Amino acid sequence: MARWKATIAYDGSAFSGWQVQPGKRTVQGELEKGLTKLHKGENKKVVASGRTDAQVHARGQVVHFDSFLQIPSARWPRAFDTVLPRDMQVICVERVHDHFHARFDATAKEYRFFLHVGRERDVFQRHYVHHVFANAFDHEAVRRSLQPLIGTHDFSSFCASDTNVESKVRTLNAASYVQTAEGEWCFRFNGDGFLYNMVRIIVGTAINIGARRLAVEDMNRILHARDRRQAGMTVPGHGLYLWQVQYGHKDVYPAGCG
Amino acid sequence: MARWKATIAYDGSAFSGWQVQPGKRTVQGELEKGLTKLHKGENKKVVASGRTDAQVHARGQVVHFDSFLQIPSARWPRAFDTVLPRDMQVICVERVHDHFHARFDATAKEYRFFLHVGRERDVFQRHYVHHVFANAFDHEAVRRSLQPLIGTHDFSSFCASDTNVESKVRTLNAASYVQTAEGEWCFRFNGDGFLYNMVRIIVGTAINIGARRLAVEDMNRILHARDRRQAGMTVPGHGLYLWQVQYGHKDVYPAGCG
Repeated sequence: MARWKATIAYDGSAFSGWQVQPGKRTVQGELEKGLTKLHKGENKKVVASGRTDAQVHARGQVVHFDSFLQIPSARWPRAFDTVLPRDMQVICVERVHDHFHARFDATAKEYRFFLHVGRERDVFQRHYVHHVFANAFDHEAVRRSLQPLIGTHDFSSFCASDTNVESKVRTLNAASYVQTAEGEWCFRFNGDGFLYNMVRIIVGTAINIGARRLAVEDMNRILHARDRRQAGMTVPGHGLYLWQVQYGHKDVYPAGCG
Repeated sequence: MARWKATIAYDGSAFSGWQVQPGKRTVQGELEKGLTKLHKGENKKVVASGRTDAQVHARGQVVHFDSFLQIPSARWPRAFDTVLPRDMQVICVERVHDHFHARFDATAKEYRFFLHVGRERDVFQRHYVHHVFANAFDHEAVRRSLQPLIGTHDFSSFCASDTNVESKVRTLNAASYVQTAEGEWCFRFNGDGFLYNMVRIIVGTAINIGARRLAVEDMNRILHARDRRQAGMTVPGHGLYLWQVQYGHKDVYPAGCG
């Protein structure tokens, strides 16, 4: 029996999120179904770095699983390809030690959120980029507003209010906002962990700043208020991507096995 | 009663092509349903520059329709937005003279076909870019192979064999092949008219040249053979976009009303 770590990408549009739920099509469900097929019906489970919600995409989700199959690392992605639906893909598979754990061993994660700002929506982006209808939008204010979030803070203001976790203290290693195409902008957040809906609430608040419903300084004020009601709305999930999960000194990149 | 010309975009993924068919979801069907709603149930029809097949997209399809509604040009797109599904969009609407005809008055059309060449498919592009699995691909040969197609020719070799049209002579004003992103390439064809599956068969033949199953010179030989069996396969429609339709001296651009 060997333990394997797999980096996977999926288009979240047609999934009810990551986690198995009865009667729903989920990423975990499809992945386990495929893995079970590769194991001739032996019931297989996978453990992910964390869940993603409905409509949320992944470029570099990481899972681990155990297998008796003697398949070389480089062959696994092709094997998965024969059993997985077209909206998900195993990008790379690596042999890891028997105690590797996709969730507990993750040291950092990167999420990206894509925004399109303008008067016209784009039919081709409706599942992949969040559209903000605006004539004027202060991108520089958005960029500046993210600065106070970097570091270790209690992020209660940016956490879904019904969440039950012991501590809402997390560390953001990086938070940036860059233009990626005409009219398209991307938020990047790298942190040691993320609260439920944290990225989507930060983005919703930043959009209020870009649209000048809030001032740049309000982000810092809201952070320290530790009050979900002070922050902006939770933006829809289809602009959000789990981009990368990092383990120890070794980064896992979405495009390959490094 | 006034005649209007509308430029529309649609994601062809969830449509059974342009033309109304009983029991199928089509672009024309959804557009006429929306227009009928805007007219309080009065049965409305639209006439397009031409049909597109299932899975084929449009950035600049053009239609005309007649209406008693007193809506200014700039307001029409917003009105359509309230009644159309999210995978189609009216980009601009212009008042035209009463004899304007979207099909008969078109002087040229531009189609683009997007290709991804590499060892890995991309889950996010599966409905929008045709993936060619290849280690080696001669892009320069593809580019050169298109040259003999430019001009006025009998394109019988690149026409679905069951097509019943009087003449298979068409004029290609331009045919090019350029890189648009990492691993992504785009064919552009501008012509006075296109035979059924013409672009998809030309692309299928060009892919054979890129993969070195055919030589660059074979494109010219196949063109002059006027024999569909000599050409390559009809590639899938999801890489194809009706990009622009031109009328007289006035170009219609997908992004605006010029």
